[in-house]
Amino acid sequence: MEDFRFVNKTDIRFGKNHIDTELHDAVAQFGQNVLLAYGGGSIKRSGLYERVMKALSGLNVVELSGIEPNPKIDSVREGQRLVKEHNVDVVLAVGGGSVIDASKVIASAKFYEGDPWDLVLDADKRYAIDQLPLVDILTLSATGTEMNWASVISNPETNQKIGTFGPNTPAVSFLDPQLTYSVSKWQTAAGSIDIFSHLTEQYFDQANDTDIQDGQIEGLYRAVIKWAPIALATPDNYEARANLMWASTMALNGLVGSGKQNAWTVHPIEHELSAFYDITHGVGLGILTPRWMKFVLSDKTVAKFARFGRNVWSIQDDDDQVVAEKAIQATYDWVKSLEVPTNLPGVEITNDEHFQEMAESAVTFGLDNGYVPMTPADVVALYNASMTSDDFEK
Amino acid sequence: MEDFRFVNKTDIRFGKNHIDTELHDAVAQFGQNVLLAYGGGSIKRSGLYERVMKALSGLNVVELSGIEPNPKIDSVREGQRLVKEHNVDVVLAVGGGSVIDASKVIASAKFYEGDPWDLVLDADKRYAIDQLPLVDILTLSATGTEMNWASVISNPETNQKIGTFGPNTPAVSFLDPQLTYSVSKWQTAAGSIDIFSHLTEQYFDQANDTDIQDGQIEGLYRAVIKWAPIALATPDNYEARANLMWASTMALNGLVGSGKQNAWTVHPIEHELSAFYDITHGVGLGILTPRWMKFVLSDKTVAKFARFGRNVWSIQDDDDQVVAEKAIQATYDWVKSLEVPTNLPGVEITNDEHFQEMAESAVTFGLDNGYVPMTPADVVALYNASMTSDDFEK
Repeated sequence: MEDFRFVNKTDIRFGKNHIDTELHDAVAQFGQNVLLAYGGGSIKRSGLYERVMKALSGLNVVELSGIEPNPKIDSVREGQRLVKEHNVDVVLAVGGGSVIDASKVIASAKFYEGDPWDLVLDADKRYAIDQLPLVDILTLSATGTEMNWASVISNPETNQKIGTFGPNTPAVSFLDPQLTYSVSKWQTAAGSIDIFSHLTEQYFDQANDTDIQDGQIEGLYRAVIKWAPIALATPDNYEARANLMWASTMALNGLVGSGKQNAWTVHPIEHELSAFYDITHGVGLGILTPRWMKFVLSDKTVAKFARFGRNVWSIQDDDDQVVAEKAIQATYDWVKSLEVPTNLPGVEITNDEHFQEMAESAVTFGLDNGYVPMTPADVVALYNASMTSDDFEK
Repeated sequence: MEDFRFVNKTDIRFGKNHIDTELHDAVAQFGQNVLLAYGGGSIKRSGLYERVMKALSGLNVVELSGIEPNPKIDSVREGQRLVKEHNVDVVLAVGGGSVIDASKVIASAKFYEGDPWDLVLDADKRYAIDQLPLVDILTLSATGTEMNWASVISNPETNQKIGTFGPNTPAVSFLDPQLTYSVSKWQTAAGSIDIFSHLTEQYFDQANDTDIQDGQIEGLYRAVIKWAPIALATPDNYEARANLMWASTMALNGLVGSGKQNAWTVHPIEHELSAFYDITHGVGLGILTPRWMKFVLSDKTVAKFARFGRNVWSIQDDDDQVVAEKAIQATYDWVKSLEVPTNLPGVEITNDEHFQEMAESAVTFGLDNGYVPMTPADVVALYNASMTSDDFEK
């Protein structure tokens, strides 16, 4: 086990309808001037916007709407303008990972005089400045942003999609599984795969003897595998939505990764897909993950994959290699069962024209330190392997 | 899944030798006047006392030593006198659960004018007052006190052993597995059983569809089951000590219990044993737990026990009842493998003279709300069943 420091001060309010009674005080403890950040019209259609505005009555609310999936730096720039102009005390983000991610950087940008893209490119700049407190109401179970330090921001001008960290996790996160009843099958699947991938990035890791972490990850894996199809089939199943929502948070609040090396691989490779083609992040991860598993499976890694097969997929066989291969197939089958595309042509990526450029960018995000180090050629091969499902559809 | 609020602000510093470089600032951030609380002479023999005093140089340190296992209210009273007299700003606890538990109540008692036993008996009194920040250096993996709100304090005058909660978890906890190399086999076993029991109290619970929590608990169980015997056999095995230490924290920092009902049973029943006979808490839990499992196993609970058997003990059988019974036997066998007594005569409790009185006291701690409710007669029967190991030694 590696040495680590862990501290996470987010105040989680999990369950039904807590916003109606607790949101006002959770926000007002930080001041009267609120930036309300959200995405499109869905929170208006669902009635959530109205509930939030009612809870905030008496406070000065300025709105930033239209934050898109794969949030763009332009939304952050607009947010920066608003928090400065209105002397905002606290940001309230209502939405999924994109809205919360953008809000975190906006919360820092209040205290920065330059272009907030600087803050995305250089985390040191964010750690050197203050950050507004952030309250959020999560409407999509996926990224774990509701209890961590991370954001992913895209810059369409440069085809960059960059992960960035700030000094603070959200101050208060409202997690009401009911608010995810209206999430589409597509986004439910993508979010669940994103959670699965976060677990995978941390589980397959060069740190040794991390049974505490690995055991917890295995439990989270099993819960996601079990409940994601149920949420697809019955969108208003509270227990399914609750397990997925808390899995989202627990998979990436720093706990199960503490003591591990945390050298991620599949996320950087997927971020290039999203940056170049603006595909749904979780769907991209679902395509890449089984191929990545095949790539890294070897004599050196087979024991870990066998553990994965036995403890996550309950595969009973004495032969590690057999268990490992069945586990990888099970991963592919699970992604497919969530009714999302399982190869790149399925998301309309039909030729390899950008693969070399994407691979060269991906490796700059630490792929030489990954569970199994990857070169640009390896990444190109992984993209190419993702062009067909033949290997998994025998 | 039940609604819950979760917030835990403890700053964990996990790994080797962080106290030498980080302890001074971790303490001094809260002020110059420090109460250093510890137990017997072991931290002096090990050299830890000297390292701590070196790290604290320049600060005003007043000492409270002699805090015993099953910490007594008299130690808290003496601590209260010292923190008031020396206008202490921060308490530094160096030791195991007993030292840290007592220090938490001392940290509250600074702000209370009466007898601190009042604070133990009435948590509302503690929540109504301030609490000094607490920094700790953990030397025993067991209770989880290093990242939670709880203390257990004994009053020998009244034969009471009472769990009490305060508003804050420790501000900073230093978890260095090396500091547990010198822990005896007896205490290593007892601490590991304590962790196992914390998991059991939370796993077997009336809340439904808590797969996130149960899955994490199963992973923690497996890690403790695996590493406790290794720590007994090779006391300076870093990975064994690291897994046990982080298990101690993760088992009872509030996370795996969030969303569950948290109606504990075996702990209150054991606390009576410790209160009346001053036996080692973890050893008492190890004696009671397999008998309690037999008591609660029924048609209603067999599915959960079968899950426990399959996911924790890797027992392969299609029959739930068979898996459940094997899992309970495996629990007994694991306790026995840790070389501690497995029945009450083994800890010199050889007659039933106090059982009725103890049972009547135990049920006042919520046993009617437990996983399976228990009456005083049930508790007496459990104590009696613990007088022999015949059922487990066929």
